[in-house]
Amino acid sequence: GLALGLWRRQAALAAAREDEEEKELRQRFMAPPVSGLRELRRRRRELRSRMELLIMETQAEVCRALTALDPGASFAVDSWERKEGGGGISCVLQDGEVFEKAGVNVSVVSGLLSEEAARQMRSRGKSLKAKDGKLPFCAMGVSSVIHPKNPHVPTMHFNYRYFEIEEADGTKQWWFGGGTDLTPTYLNEEDAVHFHKTLKEACDKHDPKLYPKYKKWCDDYFYIKHRGERRGIGGIFFDDMDSPSKEEVFQFVKSCAKAVVPCYIPIVKKHCRDSFTPEEKLWQQLRRGRYVEFNLVYDRGTKFGLLTPGSRIESILMSLPLTARWEYMHTPLESSKEAEILEVLRNPKDWVH
Amino acid sequence: GLALGLWRRQAALAAAREDEEEKELRQRFMAPPVSGLRELRRRRRELRSRMELLIMETQAEVCRALTALDPGASFAVDSWERKEGGGGISCVLQDGEVFEKAGVNVSVVSGLLSEEAARQMRSRGKSLKAKDGKLPFCAMGVSSVIHPKNPHVPTMHFNYRYFEIEEADGTKQWWFGGGTDLTPTYLNEEDAVHFHKTLKEACDKHDPKLYPKYKKWCDDYFYIKHRGERRGIGGIFFDDMDSPSKEEVFQFVKSCAKAVVPCYIPIVKKHCRDSFTPEEKLWQQLRRGRYVEFNLVYDRGTKFGLLTPGSRIESILMSLPLTARWEYMHTPLESSKEAEILEVLRNPKDWVH
Repeated sequence: GLALGLWRRQAALAAAREDEEEKELRQRFMAPPVSGLRELRRRRRELRSRMELLIMETQAEVCRALTALDPGASFAVDSWERKEGGGGISCVLQDGEVFEKAGVNVSVVSGLLSEEAARQMRSRGKSLKAKDGKLPFCAMGVSSVIHPKNPHVPTMHFNYRYFEIEEADGTKQWWFGGGTDLTPTYLNEEDAVHFHKTLKEACDKHDPKLYPKYKKWCDDYFYIKHRGERRGIGGIFFDDMDSPSKEEVFQFVKSCAKAVVPCYIPIVKKHCRDSFTPEEKLWQQLRRGRYVEFNLVYDRGTKFGLLTPGSRIESILMSLPLTARWEYMHTPLESSKEAEILEVLRNPKDWVH
Repeated sequence: GLALGLWRRQAALAAAREDEEEKELRQRFMAPPVSGLRELRRRRRELRSRMELLIMETQAEVCRALTALDPGASFAVDSWERKEGGGGISCVLQDGEVFEKAGVNVSVVSGLLSEEAARQMRSRGKSLKAKDGKLPFCAMGVSSVIHPKNPHVPTMHFNYRYFEIEEADGTKQWWFGGGTDLTPTYLNEEDAVHFHKTLKEACDKHDPKLYPKYKKWCDDYFYIKHRGERRGIGGIFFDDMDSPSKEEVFQFVKSCAKAVVPCYIPIVKKHCRDSFTPEEKLWQQLRRGRYVEFNLVYDRGTKFGLLTPGSRIESILMSLPLTARWEYMHTPLESSKEAEILEVLRNPKDWVH
C-alpha cells in the first residue's frame, strides 16, 4: 500500500514535471518541433537536436520581434509533414501595417538522397560513396524573408542550415551553411554600416577571417548576372562549412542566428514611420521585381527546393514579395537616389573599414 | 547632250522608285528591318529574307491591331544592335487603357555558336559537326506577350522563329519553331473554343495531324511543374520543325503568324469593357505571379536568352507582366470561378472536338 502510494506520487510528479517542460518549450516555440520534444530531450547532447532547438528558437525570436513592431498583424503558423520523412513549421505574416509579407520557415527533413541530388546539395561537389546509389541524409534549417511596406525599410533575408549525409561505409559527412543579407530600396549608409557591423561582430568572436570571407561570398552569391547587379547590399553568406570542428561551427552559426534580430530590427524601428512618395513606392516595386528574378533564376535553395519531390512549394516561394513590378527600360535619372543604390548594387562597398 | 539627259531622267526615275518602295516598306513595318531593305530586296528569294519580312509584317500587324483597341496608348519602338552581330526591334506599349503591358519583339541575330550553345538551341539534341568548335548561325523570330488590364481579357503569347546553322562541311541545318497560347484569368469556354479553332484551321490547311500534335506539345511545354498546373489553356507549340520541306514549313509558319490577330483580337474586343471586381483583379495578379514563375523557372527561350552573352535583357524580360502578386497559401473556394480555371490548368481540355 505504502510502496504503491509512493510510486504513484512519484509518477504523478514526473508527469507534472514533463507537462511543465512541455508547456515551457511550447511557449518558447511557434509550434511543437518536428522531431518531438521528448525525442529532442532524449538525444539532447547530439548536434542535430541542439541545431533543431536553435532554429526553432530563432524562428520564435524573429516572429516575436516582428509582431512587436506590427501589433495589428499576426503570424499564421502551419506545421506540415513531408511524406518522405520529416516536416516543418511555416510562419507567415501577410499584409500587416509594417510588413507586406514576412515568412519564417523551419524545416527538418530526412530520408534517402540520390547521388546526383547529394552532389547538388554541396556548392563544391565532394564525392560521396553511396550504398545502392542511395544516401541517408538529414537536412534542417531556418530561413526567412521579410518584405516591409515602407520603401525606406529594407528587405532582410537569412537562412541557417545543417546537413548530414551518411556514406556507404557509415562515415558521416556534415556541414553548415547560412547567411544574412539586406536588400534596401534606397541606400542609407548608417543602416548599411549598422547591419554589416553587427554581423562582423558576430563573426569576429569566432575568427576575424570569417567576416571578410563571407561578406565577399555574399556579394558573389546574390549576383543577378543578366542585370550586372547584386540583389542587395549583402551581408554574410557561407556554405559547406565543416571546420574547424562540428562544435565550433555550431557555435559560429549560433552567433550568426542570434545576430539576426539586433542587425535588422533597429533599422525597421528607425524607418517604419518614415513618410514616402508614390515614386518611392514604385521604385520599391521595381526592386521587388529584381528580387523575384534572383530567387527564381539563380537562388540555389529555391531551385533545389522546386526540383525536390515532396518539398513544400508554398514554404519555398514564401520568399517572393506580395507584389512586384516590371517596367520596360526603366532607367533612373543620373544622381538620383535610385541611381545611388544601383551604383552600390553594381559595385559592392566595404561597409565596416 | 540628249544621251546624257535620257540617262539622267532614267536615274532620277530609278531613285524615285526606290524612295517609293522604301517609303512603302517603312509604312508596312514598325522600323527599318535589321538586314536593311536593300539587302532584303537583293536576296528576296532566300528563305531568310522572306522570313525576316514575315516577322516584320507580323510585328506591325499585331501592333496596329492593339493600337486600334487602345487609341490613347502608343508603342515605343526601339531598334537595337547586338555587337556580336544582328539586332532587333522592340515595340512596347505600357500602362495603356486596355493593355497593361504589350511587347512585340523582332530579333535577327547571327554569328558563331559554341557546340554546346548550338546543342542547347534544339529541343532534341541533333549532333552538329563544328569547324574549330564554332558554328556559324542565324536566328530570327518575332515574339510577343500581351497582358491586358481587364481580368476578363486573357494574356496572349506567340513566337515564330527560324534557325540556320552551318556545319563544318558546309551543310546547313535549318528549322522552325513557334506557337501561340492563351492565359486567361477566368475561363470563358466560347473564347477558348474560338482561340483553338482559329489555330486549328491555320494548321489544318497544311496537315490535319499538326493541330493535335502541337496542341499537346503546348500543354506539355507550358507546365509549371512545382505547381502541377499549366500556365494557361494552351494553343499550339512546336520546335525543331524541319520537314516536309523548307518551303512547306515556311508556309505553315506563315499561316500560324497570320492567325495571331484573328485568334486573339476578337476576344479582346469582346471583353475589354467588361466590368470587374477588386477580387477578380486580385486573382489576375496572382495568376500573373504564376506567369512569372513559368517564364523565369522553365521557359527555354527566356533561360537561353538570359544566358546568352550580348542578348538584350530588356527585350527578353518584356514578357513579364507590369505587376504580379504572390500570396502564401492562396486557395480558391470550391466551385468558384477561380477553382474552375485551376481545374482546366491542371487537366487540359480538348477545345475543338
